[in-house]
Amino acid sequence: LTAHAERTFFRSRWVERPPAVMELDADELPAGFRAAGVACGIKGSGVLDLGLLVADTADCVSAARFTRNALVAAPVEVSRRADLAGLRAVVVNSGNANVSSGAEGIAAAEAMVDATARGLGLPSERVAVASTGVIGIGLDRSVVLEGVAAALVALAPGAGEFARAIMTTDRAPKYATLEVSLSGGPVRLAAQAKGAGMISPTFATMLCFVETDAQLDPATLDRLLESAVERSFERISVDGQMSTNDSVFMLASGGAGVAVEPGTEDEQLFARAVDSLLKQAAIAIVADGEGAARIARLVVRGAATAAESVARSVANSPLVKCALYGGDPNWGRVLAAAGQVMPEVDAASLDLWIEEVQVARASTAVPLADSERTRIAEAMREPEVELRLELGGEGEESEIYFSDLGHDYVTLNAEYS
Amino acid sequence: LTAHAERTFFRSRWVERPPAVMELDADELPAGFRAAGVACGIKGSGVLDLGLLVADTADCVSAARFTRNALVAAPVEVSRRADLAGLRAVVVNSGNANVSSGAEGIAAAEAMVDATARGLGLPSERVAVASTGVIGIGLDRSVVLEGVAAALVALAPGAGEFARAIMTTDRAPKYATLEVSLSGGPVRLAAQAKGAGMISPTFATMLCFVETDAQLDPATLDRLLESAVERSFERISVDGQMSTNDSVFMLASGGAGVAVEPGTEDEQLFARAVDSLLKQAAIAIVADGEGAARIARLVVRGAATAAESVARSVANSPLVKCALYGGDPNWGRVLAAAGQVMPEVDAASLDLWIEEVQVARASTAVPLADSERTRIAEAMREPEVELRLELGGEGEESEIYFSDLGHDYVTLNAEYS
Repeated sequence: LTAHAERTFFRSRWVERPPAVMELDADELPAGFRAAGVACGIKGSGVLDLGLLVADTADCVSAARFTRNALVAAPVEVSRRADLAGLRAVVVNSGNANVSSGAEGIAAAEAMVDATARGLGLPSERVAVASTGVIGIGLDRSVVLEGVAAALVALAPGAGEFARAIMTTDRAPKYATLEVSLSGGPVRLAAQAKGAGMISPTFATMLCFVETDAQLDPATLDRLLESAVERSFERISVDGQMSTNDSVFMLASGGAGVAVEPGTEDEQLFARAVDSLLKQAAIAIVADGEGAARIARLVVRGAATAAESVARSVANSPLVKCALYGGDPNWGRVLAAAGQVMPEVDAASLDLWIEEVQVARASTAVPLADSERTRIAEAMREPEVELRLELGGEGEESEIYFSDLGHDYVTLNAEYS
Repeated sequence: LTAHAERTFFRSRWVERPPAVMELDADELPAGFRAAGVACGIKGSGVLDLGLLVADTADCVSAARFTRNALVAAPVEVSRRADLAGLRAVVVNSGNANVSSGAEGIAAAEAMVDATARGLGLPSERVAVASTGVIGIGLDRSVVLEGVAAALVALAPGAGEFARAIMTTDRAPKYATLEVSLSGGPVRLAAQAKGAGMISPTFATMLCFVETDAQLDPATLDRLLESAVERSFERISVDGQMSTNDSVFMLASGGAGVAVEPGTEDEQLFARAVDSLLKQAAIAIVADGEGAARIARLVVRGAATAAESVARSVANSPLVKCALYGGDPNWGRVLAAAGQVMPEVDAASLDLWIEEVQVARASTAVPLADSERTRIAEAMREPEVELRLELGGEGEESEIYFSDLGHDYVTLNAEYS
């Protein structure tokens, strides 16, 4: 890991570098996987816009998670009907989210699945589909099917073009490959993510594809993904908006011939690697969101079960987010956003820290020394700002990562569709 | 009313001009009231920053409503302990919200009440207090008490200086006086409001003071205020943030010698006047909020009890608000924001109209004629945009008024505190 320190994927101070892990070239996929990224003309001008991920092992197992928005895109509706524990391939297009397009949208998503399955000699239920991009415009079926045909012949062990083909307004591709040393030998774990660029008229969409050549049973894989998603993509907020397209797929090819058995130390090591990988991917999505200049981590503790809703209220407060954008230590807004969702608890007992400096005690301003003011002002200009809020009393702890709200967000999201 | 049409307070197309009502000069208060607005130095540079409203009739009755934020400003805490059905005076300062200032803040608010009560020869429990402005900075008690002393000697039947003294970042004072013709004779009804200018480090604060010289019993007054607040200040959203200071006070002096008896036609006429007055004040607050360029009304209907939460989710969506700012008919964002809070209902059944043009049917884009596209584009450039969302099935109806999210919001709220 040290040798790669200058180009490590793990750039956030909030992500533990997983133990027993070495970072490989992000282009290298785990054994048993091939991928492709091609330009089929959805975006125009030769930009990669169709990705295909395939596991070549017949006994590949998988797990998946989707948006909880009641309004879902056609690809989510179609993928939910697939054999989500036994996926062998996922086909993805960017440039068009295939949302609100009625029966034609469903038919287009099904056609993507069917063409992929036919080309790979697989039953359709072992292929899933995802889309990200503009909405309200029909996805041209013939264009996207040409892309599928091109991707099928372009499949190769590299992840780079796939990682680029799923991008929309991401400033850079987000992908990494790790080697995890288990008792039975090394396994590989890779992820490619795209994040919440929300250029009008795009919905915020988060997609993540995770591959490993470790052998796992479907129930263990599902549990590992559930846990990692809860600690990563479920802990971020760009603007409190839930996409119609959010999807996470994890496939285990077994190609390394090394099993991860439930309840073993290997499982713990592997789980920590998955956690760190997805957490860093999630933070990269926040940091890249809508032209964000600065992100914050907020840890909330106490007041019985209020921590989670308080954390979300603060993270989604446009006043808090504008202050973060301005590098403004305007902590009263944090208390006000907290008070907004805690009518039943004692709002007079809030303690707040910016980094290690306590700024409020019992909901009242703490007199600060000049050195403390300077420390806070400096901290607020860093790319990652740490906030801690104690609600008083016993209770749960909840953490959330959120981006600022700046002019780029407004500019990007006010453009004509 | 016709004669005053060019300067009527009722500027929104969404507010019914109340029947049996004539608009008077907004400076004229109802009989039995005096007010003052003075500059005491909280804001500096001679700007009016302390207001005092007094009813001179001993049997004046009142009603009040406050923010539901669990974290409340010191003046709200102090006012809640007052005789809210029998208030005779309210003292208000702008320029400092007196929040998170601990015991000193409470003592300052109590001192404002006590000085006012002493000056007027009233028991302290018949005086309420309100504050709006910056937070986290102590309110200088001697400065504000000098203001109270100056206001006590400046009391006069005019509302204009009071309406100006309660402003923070409002672009203009918001106040009106109506004459309502009842069976027993004319009564006056006036309101002065200040609204959600959210300049850093100010909280969004909405204050409204309503006076009438009609005679009402406290229970009827309370019910009228409750109903009018529900249809006005409870139906607006600037950014989903709840202030620590929001307060509405209504005082009835009885000075006109005309009673409004519960259950009568007079009560209905009077209630409609109160409703219209507060609704227009609320819409003026939204339209003046944080540099808003455009506001929208959203009416949501159907899906059992989902309408209210759907309306709030759409109104608070930064993506929807940025589209409104850009005049962008990006209706997919409305559906997505709705879907976010309706996991239990059928999100495939959403119908949406922009003005009278249906843009989505069963959550699917409706093909539009060129003339319809032009109509929508024109409507989106108007200062008031009307949206209607049918969720499908039987259910409640909910309306909400919300502002856009533009560059001025970010600039105002990102400034250093």
